[in-house]
Amino acid sequence: VRVDSNAHKSRLLLELYVIIDEGLLGGQSVNDLIEDAIRGGADAIQYRAKRLSKKQYHEKALSLLPITRYHNVPFFVNDHLDIALAISSDGVHLGQNDLPLPEARRLMPDRMMLGVSTHSLAEASKAVKDGPDYIAIGSVFPTTTKENPEAIIGTELIRSVKNAVGEIPLVAIGGINVGNVAEVIRSGADGVAVASAVVRSASPSTAAKELKRQILAARKS
Amino acid sequence: VRVDSNAHKSRLLLELYVIIDEGLLGGQSVNDLIEDAIRGGADAIQYRAKRLSKKQYHEKALSLLPITRYHNVPFFVNDHLDIALAISSDGVHLGQNDLPLPEARRLMPDRMMLGVSTHSLAEASKAVKDGPDYIAIGSVFPTTTKENPEAIIGTELIRSVKNAVGEIPLVAIGGINVGNVAEVIRSGADGVAVASAVVRSASPSTAAKELKRQILAARKS
Repeated sequence: VRVDSNAHKSRLLLELYVIIDEGLLGGQSVNDLIEDAIRGGADAIQYRAKRLSKKQYHEKALSLLPITRYHNVPFFVNDHLDIALAISSDGVHLGQNDLPLPEARRLMPDRMMLGVSTHSLAEASKAVKDGPDYIAIGSVFPTTTKENPEAIIGTELIRSVKNAVGEIPLVAIGGINVGNVAEVIRSGADGVAVASAVVRSASPSTAAKELKRQILAARKS
Repeated sequence: VRVDSNAHKSRLLLELYVIIDEGLLGGQSVNDLIEDAIRGGADAIQYRAKRLSKKQYHEKALSLLPITRYHNVPFFVNDHLDIALAISSDGVHLGQNDLPLPEARRLMPDRMMLGVSTHSLAEASKAVKDGPDYIAIGSVFPTTTKENPEAIIGTELIRSVKNAVGEIPLVAIGGINVGNVAEVIRSGADGVAVASAVVRSASPSTAAKELKRQILAARKS
């Protein structure tokens, strides 16, 4: 699904970005979830585990990386650049309260990708200047995934954010599911990031597949 | 106070290691506290701020570093190797739940120092194998500084820990103050790390000076 599957640093097609959040698991295997997400068409995997210690996160992420590598799907570490560097992940995803993007980029190897969370047109426009590999915008809809829910921006803002970020892939996030994903894509997002919609599904691979199908259909229309 | 003041990587004399913990401040200026601690004889400064975001910690630490640099006293970042790397601190201090020491060392420039918290003879003996620049052992006495207090090891264990860590500087930590510091040093610690005893003192520089005086006297005896 990437434009150039040999170079992680080429422009990503992040149509379906699946976040495996430890906080959403109900005894499910993270390994199986990643396999399911990728089988369903995920273009990237992020591992999120806000409550794990860095030691635990490092150990877990290190054990998951071979799965995504096997499938040639990029693996993103959430928040912690030191862990990303330690395991040589494909990318790191930073929030507005994490290490500033220019500082992060300076410490990262060239091949490592940098993504960033934004929550407004202003934040997204500012992030563009730091040249991230993608920009996430949200929360588009209400979400129960985050402990401290963010403001809801709705789909109307997506078009102007996409205009502001230009060529940088724009990934919409927050409360996106099979019922609203088409609207999100038609609103201008290049792709979507989902957690619950896949992780909490009775069939994660089916959920991912249906999301991907709708994304592809909406992009064509 | 260092054996070789031109080389941070030479064997440290960590007699008095002052931890500036944001959680202990009562409106005091961190800049002033660092100046006071160094004026009182601190051989190293660690900045601890468990509740700050990485963005906030990075910004604050970056602003503090010139103070310690001016005085040629090493500055340690707590927990976050990514922040240590971003600001080029003199060292990083890791706990048992942080990134494993070998992983951290691999990412660190040669000149950057690595310290580690241990809480038992077993942990200290294990840490030795990773070749840290110093090993902290504690909590020696009860402490109110940490949100999740650790087991109290008392001073009896210090001698055997010192025997186990050999040439690596051993820094005792936890509830150490002017009333017990001499006993801690006589028990075999090369130095002590203190937070409250300096930060919460009516006169931080006087407190540091008295701690240092007692450490020096106890080391001679």
